[in-house]
Formats: sequence, structure tokens, C-alpha cells
Amino acid sequence: MSDHPGPEILAARWVSHSRLFHVEELRLRFGNGVERTYERLNPGFHGAVMVVPVSDDGRLLLVREYGAGVGDYYLSFPKGAVHAEESMLDAANRELMEEVGFGAHELELLTELSLSPSYMGNRMSIVLARGLFEKRLPGDEPEPLTVSAHTFEELIDLQASGVLNEAYAVAALFLARERLATAEAP
Amino acid sequence: MSDHPGPEILAARWVSHSRLFHVEELRLRFGNGVERTYERLNPGFHGAVMVVPVSDDGRLLLVREYGAGVGDYYLSFPKGAVHAEESMLDAANRELMEEVGFGAHELELLTELSLSPSYMGNRMSIVLARGLFEKRLPGDEPEPLTVSAHTFEELIDLQASGVLNEAYAVAALFLARERLATAEAP
Repeated sequence: MSDHPGPEILAARWVSHSRLFHVEELRLRFGNGVERTYERLNPGFHGAVMVVPVSDDGRLLLVREYGAGVGDYYLSFPKGAVHAEESMLDAANRELMEEVGFGAHELELLTELSLSPSYMGNRMSIVLARGLFEKRLPGDEPEPLTVSAHTFEELIDLQASGVLNEAYAVAALFLARERLATAEAP
Repeated sequence: MSDHPGPEILAARWVSHSRLFHVEELRLRFGNGVERTYERLNPGFHGAVMVVPVSDDGRLLLVREYGAGVGDYYLSFPKGAVHAEESMLDAANRELMEEVGFGAHELELLTELSLSPSYMGNRMSIVLARGLFEKRLPGDEPEPLTVSAHTFEELIDLQASGVLNEAYAVAALFLARERLATAEAP
């Protein structure tokens, strides 16, 4: 969506590293001549996938997991990184099997979302999963995740009451509802 | 939403710093005895606000801004950090004036969203702004932002075509539509 050229990168250098986070500093010159220093996080990050699993009776399966960032358990859809050797849809099915204990016969990419584009290049693919069947793969979670099933109405209420508040998951909920409200044709 | 106690923090230490990003390492022991090392980003971050401005004719005002993380311009709602000395709604009105050139007589908190709870504690308040009036404040952007006005239908189409893909903005779009579809009573 560039209809005018972006700023010129005058300089780029790594400024900090931890096990998970790598920060690159960029010196940019905008079209109007203004120069600014930016930092971006983990450039080159591979990508991640979030799965919206819908059972045959129309209920969505969510997981409750500890989030070290917020220091509490939180409700969301199953999600995880896409590994280098697998496709995005394969990653979606694997995460579903690891976190929820189901596989899906039908996997459909709904959209790809970004997050904090000002300092991260991360992309999250949102995948609708239907035709569920029981299958569990071992995951890397420190403790088993709590799985719960909810209707769209229940999830809208859980969003309004603040229980479901993760931005990707809230966007995914509405996108799945839009998709399922339209004709079931692919 | 903790119905069982969270993991015990065994140790915490700073592992890296840059100008914007501060990484804390946590050693956690879960209820089942499993220990894991986590990293979290910028604990104590103050909070941010995203504004969904709706004009009297029902169109939403968005901004197009350069994102150093994605290396391109992107479409989103006006947003920014809440300063220490201001309320969240005051911050919403200030960002609206700085980025879009309008103030709002009616500001309503729709919800508070989190993002990547596994490694960030960030919260984004989503505010619906109505009763718009022209007022511009100087902002800190390196170049003027491009403002555009769209109906909900146009924005759903821009989401489907990948132009509107920022997770907070997509969630905010649907939340605003839900709010405006219900009775106009507060």
C-alpha cells in the first residue's frame, strides 16, 4: 500500500540481544528531509499462526494459558510459531493437536494480521479449522492447557466482561463470525 | 480470571536494554513442579490508547503512517501512549487532535485489549470518539499523516484485501460496529 516511497534507511545496527529479543536501530530520512531514529524488534521473525477451531455444533474451542507478560492466565485461541520446515496450515493443525487435542479436516486461511507495525514485523495468520477429530500431539507447554468450548454469543460476552482481551483473538473471533455468516461456499 | 494460582517466580533479572526495549528474565515454577525460563518485554509499560473516530455521517477516520517494524506505510486508527499526567480519555482526544486534526465531544471506552500476553504486559484502551470538531494539535510525527474516511463496509473490504491488517485496528473496527449496532443509549 505504498503510494509514495518510504523513508531512506541511512544506517542500521544491532543495539541489544537477549535470548528471545533482538533489537535493531534504524536511522531514517523521510521524504520531507526529517531524520529520525527508530528501533525494531526481531526483524526476520518467521511468522506465527492462530487457529479458530469450530466444532460441528458451532462452538469454538479456546485455551487458557499462563502469560508471563501479563503475569496471569489468559483466554485465547491456540497459536504458535510456524516452524521452518512446515507450511502455515500444517503448523495450524499441529498447534491444534498439541494445545487442544484435535486435528481438523478443513483448514482455511482467513487473513494475516500484523501487530505494532511501528516496531515489529510480526505476522499472525488466522486459520479457521472445521471438521474436527480427536488427535493429540505432545506440546512444549509447562502444564496442560485448559480447553473450553463457547458459542459466539458467549465469547462476545466474555470479551465485553474483559475475560477475552487478547487483540489477535478478538479480531479472530469477529473474522470467524463474518466468515461463517456468509454463504458456506468456499 | 485466575481460578488456580499462577506459577511461583523463583528469580527475576534484567537481561538486556536498548533505548525502547527492556527485557526481564523470569524463572518460574508451575503448580505441577515444572520450571521454565521466560522473558518479558518492558514490564511496567504505562499503557496506550487507540481512537475510533466516527463522523456525523457515519464514516470512520483512519491514518496512514510509516511503520519501521514492517518497513512500509500502514493503515490504522490514530493511537499513542498515555502520558503520565493525563487520563486515558484525555490522551485519546490529544492523539485525535495531533494525528487527525479533530477533537471529540463524546469519548467512550469500548474495551481494553492486550497483546502477546506471553511476553508483554501492554494494554491498549479502545475509545470510540463521536461529536467531532476541527482542532489540530502539533504531534511528534516526522511527516504529516495521511487521513482517510471510510464506511464500515469499505473497511471490511480493506481488511479482506489485506490493506487494513493491524490486529488492534481490526478488533477495534468490529467492536465499534457492535457498539453502534446496538441501541444508541449509553
